Amino acid sequence: MNVLWIMADQLRFDYLSCYGAKHIDTPNLDWLAGQGVRFNRAYVQSPICGPSRMSAYTGRYPRSHGATWNGFPLPVGEITLGDHLRELGVSCSLVGKTHMTADKDGMSRLGIDPSSPIGARVAECGFDVVIRDDGTNHSDSTSRHAEDYDAYLRAYGMDGDNPWEEWANTGVAPDGSLRSGWYLENAPLPARVPKEHSETAWLTTRGIEFIERQGDDPWLCHLSYIKPHWPYLVPAPYNDMYAAADLPPVNRSDVEHVDEHPLMAAWRQTRMCRSFSRPEVRDVVGPVYMGLIKELDDQLGRLFAFLRDSGRMEDTMVVFCSDHGDNMGDHWLGEKDLFYDCSARMPLIVYDPRKSADTTRGSAPEDLVEMIDLVPTFIDFFGGAQKPHQIEGRSLAPLLAGESTDWRDYCVSEYDYATRDARRMVGVDQSQAKLTMIFDGRWKYTHVEHFRPMLFDLETDPNELTDLGGNPDYADQITRLSDLHFDWARKHHNRVTRSADQVEAMTDGKEPPGIFIAYKDADELAADGLSLTPKRQLRSAN
Amino acid sequence: MNVLWIMADQLRFDYLSCYGAKHIDTPNLDWLAGQGVRFNRAYVQSPICGPSRMSAYTGRYPRSHGATWNGFPLPVGEITLGDHLRELGVSCSLVGKTHMTADKDGMSRLGIDPSSPIGARVAECGFDVVIRDDGTNHSDSTSRHAEDYDAYLRAYGMDGDNPWEEWANTGVAPDGSLRSGWYLENAPLPARVPKEHSETAWLTTRGIEFIERQGDDPWLCHLSYIKPHWPYLVPAPYNDMYAAADLPPVNRSDVEHVDEHPLMAAWRQTRMCRSFSRPEVRDVVGPVYMGLIKELDDQLGRLFAFLRDSGRMEDTMVVFCSDHGDNMGDHWLGEKDLFYDCSARMPLIVYDPRKSADTTRGSAPEDLVEMIDLVPTFIDFFGGAQKPHQIEGRSLAPLLAGESTDWRDYCVSEYDYATRDARRMVGVDQSQAKLTMIFDGRWKYTHVEHFRPMLFDLETDPNELTDLGGNPDYADQITRLSDLHFDWARKHHNRVTRSADQVEAMTDGKEPPGIFIAYKDADELAADGLSLTPKRQLRSAN
Repeated sequence: MNVLWIMADQLRFDYLSCYGAKHIDTPNLDWLAGQGVRFNRAYVQSPICGPSRMSAYTGRYPRSHGATWNGFPLPVGEITLGDHLRELGVSCSLVGKTHMTADKDGMSRLGIDPSSPIGARVAECGFDVVIRDDGTNHSDSTSRHAEDYDAYLRAYGMDGDNPWEEWANTGVAPDGSLRSGWYLENAPLPARVPKEHSETAWLTTRGIEFIERQGDDPWLCHLSYIKPHWPYLVPAPYNDMYAAADLPPVNRSDVEHVDEHPLMAAWRQTRMCRSFSRPEVRDVVGPVYMGLIKELDDQLGRLFAFLRDSGRMEDTMVVFCSDHGDNMGDHWLGEKDLFYDCSARMPLIVYDPRKSADTTRGSAPEDLVEMIDLVPTFIDFFGGAQKPHQIEGRSLAPLLAGESTDWRDYCVSEYDYATRDARRMVGVDQSQAKLTMIFDGRWKYTHVEHFRPMLFDLETDPNELTDLGGNPDYADQITRLSDLHFDWARKHHNRVTRSADQVEAMTDGKEPPGIFIAYKDADELAADGLSLTPKRQLRSAN
Repeated sequence: MNVLWIMADQLRFDYLSCYGAKHIDTPNLDWLAGQGVRFNRAYVQSPICGPSRMSAYTGRYPRSHGATWNGFPLPVGEITLGDHLRELGVSCSLVGKTHMTADKDGMSRLGIDPSSPIGARVAECGFDVVIRDDGTNHSDSTSRHAEDYDAYLRAYGMDGDNPWEEWANTGVAPDGSLRSGWYLENAPLPARVPKEHSETAWLTTRGIEFIERQGDDPWLCHLSYIKPHWPYLVPAPYNDMYAAADLPPVNRSDVEHVDEHPLMAAWRQTRMCRSFSRPEVRDVVGPVYMGLIKELDDQLGRLFAFLRDSGRMEDTMVVFCSDHGDNMGDHWLGEKDLFYDCSARMPLIVYDPRKSADTTRGSAPEDLVEMIDLVPTFIDFFGGAQKPHQIEGRSLAPLLAGESTDWRDYCVSEYDYATRDARRMVGVDQSQAKLTMIFDGRWKYTHVEHFRPMLFDLETDPNELTDLGGNPDYADQITRLSDLHFDWARKHHNRVTRSADQVEAMTDGKEPPGIFIAYKDADELAADGLSLTPKRQLRSAN
């Protein structure tokens, strides 16, 4: 058995036709959803690349692993999916993006050589790297991982100091001039790189080749696409396949400015939100975003055809998800970062090849699922024991098998805005720039340190336009959800070195061997079935 | 400059005359208190050896380091005092007890060889080991660390398969027969080992010799005594220096059984609590406990004389504390584990040799101090920068210098009773067996997962006999303290890989180099002072 874990970046759940999108057709992902389970209420644990992925790869919340924003190293010592899988004899390989930043200080402190086999894995979040590429490969990037794609482009005659920049991130204007993909106005231009050699096509081929190379030993492959994350540029014919008229109406309202939360007021003033609130930006970028998604679906079609033809659909669990969404002008916002569904809710499709999953094929349950459920699901799939002392997510196995189970009542997501402009705009300290979402399937509550909370009722307000967080009529709801937040905050999350079985054995044992507390005399000791006579000899007297 | 950090084990704060004890005279510790600052409201972060010490040695709460009970390994990757000091060129050495359990699984996972210099330190909680001895060295102990003391005893003709057991933990009855120190009834017997060679005397000599060996390089020595922790046995003349009549009256009342908290009802039914609630036990053990403390003070007198004579009082900070107390029958309890002052409040004396501390010599401030304040105090003392992203305690420097400062409003202690009998008696799951104390200097609140809280008003009820936690008149207090608990629970504590300065720099920088988000065109980019022209060249085109 194997796992192919596919992740897209910045893909909104509602831009897939299987999730109800009417403006775009994604037949290949729809097909996968028909073969498996499409989780309709799946949420990431932080709506931004870095911490979302660190959570995804550890099965732990950001408050637990501590890599709470992009570029924050994952502390050495955090146990990763790769660690769990290798214990089970399963390899864990990366083809694409992780956004991992190595804890160099920690590795140095513990004497872990990054060029050793262990060190290489620690530096790469537990993965054995086939390809590491995070996209956004401008020459000044301090985390540029484009060697493989650059070499590939050069091999196909697309040379330059920075082939990614000059071919994949450069558009061709009608007059033949070259334009940068960083500028939103250039989004509709065809990328200079032909579609056969786009990042998405290239990565798909690398994934297929990886799978082809595998033998009988079980493997997990994390095929981690860069798109549709910006730069928003895509080769023909995807660049102008869609137009502004194809976009869904933007989801925003002046109502959102009424009694506006102070943090939201500041956030909406940031440059990127003002930029994406401009119709001329959304109208130009949105269709290209759709084109990138269409390209991805087409390439997944190629991948899924390979899986079918090669027999991998018999023995490989196939998972598709995204690390977060894209506001794309909704709520007067750009980018991601916040907890609206367009940002924090992710598409999640799980194809489980086992017979036990036959009863759920094509279903779309409403159970609240967290990204961090994937690590324990994979461990379970490969026959490993659950580790609730180390992993905070839950195995999806019962849901995949259609078994009734006691599932979670609320899901959690977090956001650390300490490094964002908005923090200074609202005058909050680094340690206080924290948001925590508690969503129970209807009520989406956001605790905002230092300010009033935000609250949306997704039953009566599915578009999340009316923030009830400052409305005294909802005080009881807020108290209830705040209590859930407190419950979650109190849970053990660092007690990782003793499993439940070990704790139970210690409780059975009362005291460790050789410890005798509060016994008045030999009779009391004997009454507890103990004896001072050593069971083992240390060394004889001289 | 150097630090001598002395710790006793299981020493009640109120059994020192400088803390007001009338029943015992501890002139040497009194002297130290007169030279320095006696912190009158100091609390440990867990009232049991293991987690209290893991917190002491990391400067972090148990919920952060995760070694929440005895024998729970400190997760590899936790940064220790030794790590912080070595960065500053200061050595960090151990003479005595730490109760550290190495994270063998974690070390193996990261390829850290326990016999390497780094591995040895990781296995020993960051210390370079001169002596490691946790006491309680029965032959069946799985964490026996008695090689040095055994060798010492043998060298003085006190041989046997287990010299610790046969000499230090064996008493001599009037008829000459040998009796085990494990049995409380034997407590009043003189230990077979003469006082010159007791564990306390021996460890003091080892500490003095360590200091004598030091040269000019700055050092920290953790001189960590085993006593007065059980076994309660001490050599003559300490064994019968005190009698039952010398004990303070036991602090307990039938009032404590009225509306008794369900956890307390169960706890009081455990064998060790029933044992120590017997007058015949307290009357016999208590005076020996006093004798162990008197012996310790006498030996500290020898140590302090050495510090004076050698000139170390000029250049060495001397700290004295205990990892927790001993209920000794108070509140119908034995052992420690809970948050009554007799268990969770610790003696803390800090002698700071610097002139800046002259104004506070002999003072006894009421500021709420936590054991975890010591690590940052030491880092500060050696000239290192504070690291609030890694360390949760605060440097005591302003209090030592008599400076007015914005200090904490409440202190926190935690207890994980998952491995205790009482958990099964009250029918709580492993994950729910948690207590958290929030003490604001007057109100001592204990959150008890799954049950009502406990609440004591130390102003009107300094003996902590009346639990107000179930009294509706105190609902507002409980809400207020619960809110403080929630505040504390929400704080960042794992975001250890990015310092405040680094976060501030990221906020200044808006985006990392080579990242350009949401710019419509070149004019917008230029308006932000940015350019797409790379600052660095990657490689020229062929």
